[in-house]
Amino acid sequence: MYTVIVDVNDTIYLDHAAATPMSNEVLAAMQPYFSERFYNPSSPYALAVGVRREYEDAKLRLAACIGARPAEIIMTGGATESINLALRGTGGHIVTSAVEHESVLSAARQGDNTVVAVFPNGRVEPDAIKTAIQPDTRLVSVALANGEIGTIQPLADVAVIVRDERMKRLEEGNHTPIYLHSDASQGAGLLDVHVARLGVDMLTLNAGKVYGPKQVGLLWVERSVRLEAQIVGGGQERGLRSGTENVAGTVGFARALELAERGRKKETIRLANLRDGMEKQLVEAIPEAIISGDPKHRLASHLHISFPGIDGERLVFSLERRGVMVATGSACAANKGTRSHVLTAIGLSSDVADGSLRLSLGRLSNEENTDQAARILIEEVRSEYQRTS
Amino acid sequence: MYTVIVDVNDTIYLDHAAATPMSNEVLAAMQPYFSERFYNPSSPYALAVGVRREYEDAKLRLAACIGARPAEIIMTGGATESINLALRGTGGHIVTSAVEHESVLSAARQGDNTVVAVFPNGRVEPDAIKTAIQPDTRLVSVALANGEIGTIQPLADVAVIVRDERMKRLEEGNHTPIYLHSDASQGAGLLDVHVARLGVDMLTLNAGKVYGPKQVGLLWVERSVRLEAQIVGGGQERGLRSGTENVAGTVGFARALELAERGRKKETIRLANLRDGMEKQLVEAIPEAIISGDPKHRLASHLHISFPGIDGERLVFSLERRGVMVATGSACAANKGTRSHVLTAIGLSSDVADGSLRLSLGRLSNEENTDQAARILIEEVRSEYQRTS
Repeated sequence: MYTVIVDVNDTIYLDHAAATPMSNEVLAAMQPYFSERFYNPSSPYALAVGVRREYEDAKLRLAACIGARPAEIIMTGGATESINLALRGTGGHIVTSAVEHESVLSAARQGDNTVVAVFPNGRVEPDAIKTAIQPDTRLVSVALANGEIGTIQPLADVAVIVRDERMKRLEEGNHTPIYLHSDASQGAGLLDVHVARLGVDMLTLNAGKVYGPKQVGLLWVERSVRLEAQIVGGGQERGLRSGTENVAGTVGFARALELAERGRKKETIRLANLRDGMEKQLVEAIPEAIISGDPKHRLASHLHISFPGIDGERLVFSLERRGVMVATGSACAANKGTRSHVLTAIGLSSDVADGSLRLSLGRLSNEENTDQAARILIEEVRSEYQRTS
Repeated sequence: MYTVIVDVNDTIYLDHAAATPMSNEVLAAMQPYFSERFYNPSSPYALAVGVRREYEDAKLRLAACIGARPAEIIMTGGATESINLALRGTGGHIVTSAVEHESVLSAARQGDNTVVAVFPNGRVEPDAIKTAIQPDTRLVSVALANGEIGTIQPLADVAVIVRDERMKRLEEGNHTPIYLHSDASQGAGLLDVHVARLGVDMLTLNAGKVYGPKQVGLLWVERSVRLEAQIVGGGQERGLRSGTENVAGTVGFARALELAERGRKKETIRLANLRDGMEKQLVEAIPEAIISGDPKHRLASHLHISFPGIDGERLVFSLERRGVMVATGSACAANKGTRSHVLTAIGLSSDVADGSLRLSLGRLSNEENTDQAARILIEEVRSEYQRTS
């Protein structure tokens, strides 16, 4: 039914922000729970109780990775669900930024919300957040890092603003709570995701972005946060997310996050070097190239580059013919054929935005293949410019 | 950390309604999507497009198993999520029965609802449903079969009532739609789940109950049904369930449901024979035993038996010491230590309800181990009765 067009071993994968391959250690950790340890963790007999214990242990390890208490970890069916729970479960007015993931913007739109503009480098201005906060604002949601241009947000500054607002309300006798949620799906494995250091009240993480299983996510919810369940039923996950627990997925996620955390600092340096090397090659060879994002605050994995006047989608396909897999933007948006709201928000003209590629590096990247990818990209872009000039 | 108390090979598992082990064929089908075929199905390059095609093919095969169109299949993170989408996504007044799963009752309670009583055999009276329908009722939700006592519901009769109501509204110029949803999690693999033959408008299925992966479910939504998404974002699943697709889980579910459907008739007869054999042995040996459910309309897998005056939870543990794994009721409820709402609804006295066991047979059951389980159960119950007399 499906014919492999390019041999996987001959390809260069530069779309780690869209999906990551599960590591062998993760699959090995999950495997027992598919077969011999398949028991429902809510069942009463010892083998099921053992599975429950291992499930709780996995949550404990996830909690340890982010400096949280295990009881504060709510397992979900992925980052989108976590985000929906955080945003729709809080209620009231929401403040968020124009460069958030579709799921944050869509969930915010379900109620009263203010979307704050960003700087051309994609950074949120903390003062703009401050101005947008109303007396009935219950949630501020700002991603740790942008999935498209890789910009890392000044989350600590936003946290101070939320804390100040909380203090102000306390003094004024306004009992409306205000929380800070961050979607750290794109930062985990490269940035510190310790919740206290981030200063957040809720944190979304996605296993599928850290070489773990897909459709497995978590929402960390600080214990004082009042949240309304979005999926009700058997009362699992402290009543905040009903449904039989995904033991295999949770154990896999724990292993994946532990591995990512363990190698984080080294991997960040390695990827930044590879990325910077590519960037240098590309910018030197193609004077038209425009790099987006904040050079000082950018995920080590991300390189967002635009070639004004060139059709980015066409370029994706010509690169693919040569074995290089890249995206024009986030997979969700790209699939709908609409222009990225992130690129619009940072003020790229349509001419520049339409000629954009998001290159995202990761564990499949090495010096040889990033170097080769840069060379192929230069050739393809040059030939496109020649064709269209 | 965890010590195996009983050797899995020496145990007799009679809790298939709580969880089923994934079959090897299912794991084999899923495996490629964990590693070499890890691509995000929304990405543009051919390898990802191939994964998208295989994902759509899996949905097509799921659709074929239930006689539906693939575009009508919404993949979810399990039955609880499917149920929440069906019930909370419809809005308006909901009619359901007192023996529904917690997730149906909890989701119904989020809005206006009427819970209809059942007969002592657990069957819903279609006329009671008819009486409960109001001009603003938008949904009737009745499970195909009860997970605790195994009673199969007269869904076809309920479907006629819903259709009649729809016709009546049309004639009256009442444009409020009315749909029939059924949670078939417990019936799939043993009963026909062809949507047209069931006469439903929405159907929930759970991979984890048919020897497929856990936290994978689907909601079949007939194309004319108007439903509001509960998880918003990237717009996957026709906008009704956002989030990166669980390709491995969906492919595994398709394989699991195909295998279950293929072996359904034979397996139903096999299990009914084994179950009936156990029932005969138990009832003959223990005159106090009370069988619940409808003998004529009961899942082949289920045997719900009560021993008045005996502590069911105690019995679970004494059986476990002898290698027999059973539950007192559904895993969700049992875990909370509350009395089953199903047993209350069918009018069991607390004395009888508290001495109940749910034995649920499945692929791990055979003549030898069910026979042995019955013998062990008889011994344990007799010794309990002696102890307490």
